[in-house]
Amino acid sequence: MKILVINAGSSSLKYQLIDMENESLLAKGLCERIGIDGRLTHKPQNGKASFEQDMPFPTHKEAIEAVLDKLVSAEYGVVDSMQEIGAVGHRVLHGGIKFTKSCLVDDACEAAIKECFPLGPLHNPANLMGIKACQAVMPGTPQVAVFDTSFGMDMAPKAYMYALPYEYYEKDSLRRYGFHGTSHRFVSARAVEMFGNDENLRVINCHLGNGSSVSASIGGKCVDTSMGLTPLAGVPMGTRSGDCDPAILQFIMNKYGYSVDEMLTIMNKKSGVLGLSGVSSDFRDLESAYKEGNERAGLALDKFAYEVKKYVGSYIAALGGVDVLTFTAGVGENSSTMRARICDGLECFGIKMSSERNDVHGEEALISADDSKVKVYVIPTNEELMIARDTKAIVDAL
Amino acid sequence: MKILVINAGSSSLKYQLIDMENESLLAKGLCERIGIDGRLTHKPQNGKASFEQDMPFPTHKEAIEAVLDKLVSAEYGVVDSMQEIGAVGHRVLHGGIKFTKSCLVDDACEAAIKECFPLGPLHNPANLMGIKACQAVMPGTPQVAVFDTSFGMDMAPKAYMYALPYEYYEKDSLRRYGFHGTSHRFVSARAVEMFGNDENLRVINCHLGNGSSVSASIGGKCVDTSMGLTPLAGVPMGTRSGDCDPAILQFIMNKYGYSVDEMLTIMNKKSGVLGLSGVSSDFRDLESAYKEGNERAGLALDKFAYEVKKYVGSYIAALGGVDVLTFTAGVGENSSTMRARICDGLECFGIKMSSERNDVHGEEALISADDSKVKVYVIPTNEELMIARDTKAIVDAL
Repeated sequence: MKILVINAGSSSLKYQLIDMENESLLAKGLCERIGIDGRLTHKPQNGKASFEQDMPFPTHKEAIEAVLDKLVSAEYGVVDSMQEIGAVGHRVLHGGIKFTKSCLVDDACEAAIKECFPLGPLHNPANLMGIKACQAVMPGTPQVAVFDTSFGMDMAPKAYMYALPYEYYEKDSLRRYGFHGTSHRFVSARAVEMFGNDENLRVINCHLGNGSSVSASIGGKCVDTSMGLTPLAGVPMGTRSGDCDPAILQFIMNKYGYSVDEMLTIMNKKSGVLGLSGVSSDFRDLESAYKEGNERAGLALDKFAYEVKKYVGSYIAALGGVDVLTFTAGVGENSSTMRARICDGLECFGIKMSSERNDVHGEEALISADDSKVKVYVIPTNEELMIARDTKAIVDAL
Repeated sequence: MKILVINAGSSSLKYQLIDMENESLLAKGLCERIGIDGRLTHKPQNGKASFEQDMPFPTHKEAIEAVLDKLVSAEYGVVDSMQEIGAVGHRVLHGGIKFTKSCLVDDACEAAIKECFPLGPLHNPANLMGIKACQAVMPGTPQVAVFDTSFGMDMAPKAYMYALPYEYYEKDSLRRYGFHGTSHRFVSARAVEMFGNDENLRVINCHLGNGSSVSASIGGKCVDTSMGLTPLAGVPMGTRSGDCDPAILQFIMNKYGYSVDEMLTIMNKKSGVLGLSGVSSDFRDLESAYKEGNERAGLALDKFAYEVKKYVGSYIAALGGVDVLTFTAGVGENSSTMRARICDGLECFGIKMSSERNDVHGEEALISADDSKVKVYVIPTNEELMIARDTKAIVDAL
């Protein structure tokens, strides 16, 4: 079965076509500026040329039509006809409390995605647009929704409840959800697989990129995760502050006369390592600036590593120990210096890095020393494959 | 030397008179409803009767006069004359960035306390009123300011900086300060003293009461502490939320039309274990309700213990290991069940409690098992004595 994986944003749509026979990527691409003008970038993986061109995308429907057109075209295609595409898997940000697992898109599922608009105001409406567009263009092809929040649904109340008036949980479903869930699920499942499908394997996964989060799991089931009601929570990120003293908002808003929306824009877009350094939200830029003597770039790198390190310690406490520590996503997979910064001083937990093995970029590898009690790995994440796997499992069971 | 220790609030004033020859308490008491009507409670510790009576306190000055009157009176007194009082030590909440240590009150010190009004709007003006009142009533007696924030001044930038635009640090001194500093300083100093004044002793101190905070220190010097710009930050407390996803404020404020001040009142006064349980902010009430089957009281206790436990783990990561774990303040000194909840599962760090030894309340005691790698203690805090010690040291050096 070949599965089309869709990640629809408000004005963009990323896609991958995956052959589930061998889990190989057939093509991937991106539709940009939907509703504005439009541009398609399509990259077949079978040796055919890439395609990149402006084209009008008034809605997501035209974007999907263009993608399918390219997937079956003689010049840029990878399949003979649309009928080869057995199902479509959609990344959906927020499933709220009701959707603890991926599910076939039906009326109840669509209603749930809509119900979660207040919890995922930027993403859920766009995700639903992607689903509606596929339904229109590919009638009869099963659509599956894979929620970024479903990984966090295994958490216990002590981990997901906020210490706020209980009514906000009852009335507004206000709780910790966690994001990057599909990535955490993929990486922790891979770790469990590597260790003989050990259901008791305690894994701490550091998903470090422009957005970053840390998760703790046992046998692939989430025990805790650093993002919260929204993806602003947890460790500092490229431009996001992470958790902080709520009184900071009051202090700055009252002093500068900001509205809460203006304040949140600052905390989402102008904070994190960008705000601290004044240099960049990109960790490669920070490393370069630091090497050239920029102290605030050094502070930003230090701060990021320190907060991730503290999360690792807190999750060891939450799990009562740890067997495997994993790094994934852009920074986690590629920055050996950041991994070394984070693990420096964690020898007390039985985490002992091998600097030689740590010199690895973007590929699966053991990076701890032979005598490290805790095994440390780089495991490249693959959210699209996780979505395709969920989609296949659901369609197979129909 | 006898030292008067003053903790002045906006309408109250707590005091202790301490004989520094043997660090014994001579008398303690409380002036209430200053500026409203007034009531004095005075408790001599020499066998004389206590005094409790309404009396007019238009300002802090009349309150201090009444206290001194009682301290030297035939019926309720503990000294022969005011001249026996060698100095006054004042608890001051916020010393900002400039005051890293306790200091003699002079013009610069007063100016600094005033400068910090925006950072400690409820406490610093009241603390200064207490100082001015003592200066008026006891001219010539040295006054010393002991800042609750000075313990946190040893933190490194990676611990005290927020991942926010750097300008807020430069312009507004926005950073992590930490509170309960005098208590953390007292307890960590006591632990260091117990271990032969080991300058490398790594201590994690859990100050758990109605307000709670956790600190990490090496040789008594603060490495990190859980309260932040304000005492709202860190672990959940009796009525305070602790740290959280800043987007929660946006979500609730926009949905319910609250101002940021209303929102912060909810997070300061209606959250924490009170908000979660709907029962009480008092941990004894929660334990009772939990025993009677109240699930939300159980959740609140679970949540509190879980977050403190995670802080302990995160600070072990920050310190690169830990030698001594201490519990102090109301809950920390008295609740053996809460200490047990927190330490349950921390065996992976070499923390092994003795349930027999843990059955201790309000007194200094080792509560870990003999084979526990980390020594766990109850150490009752004594902020007033710490203030008196600082005051004596500064006055002795004059």
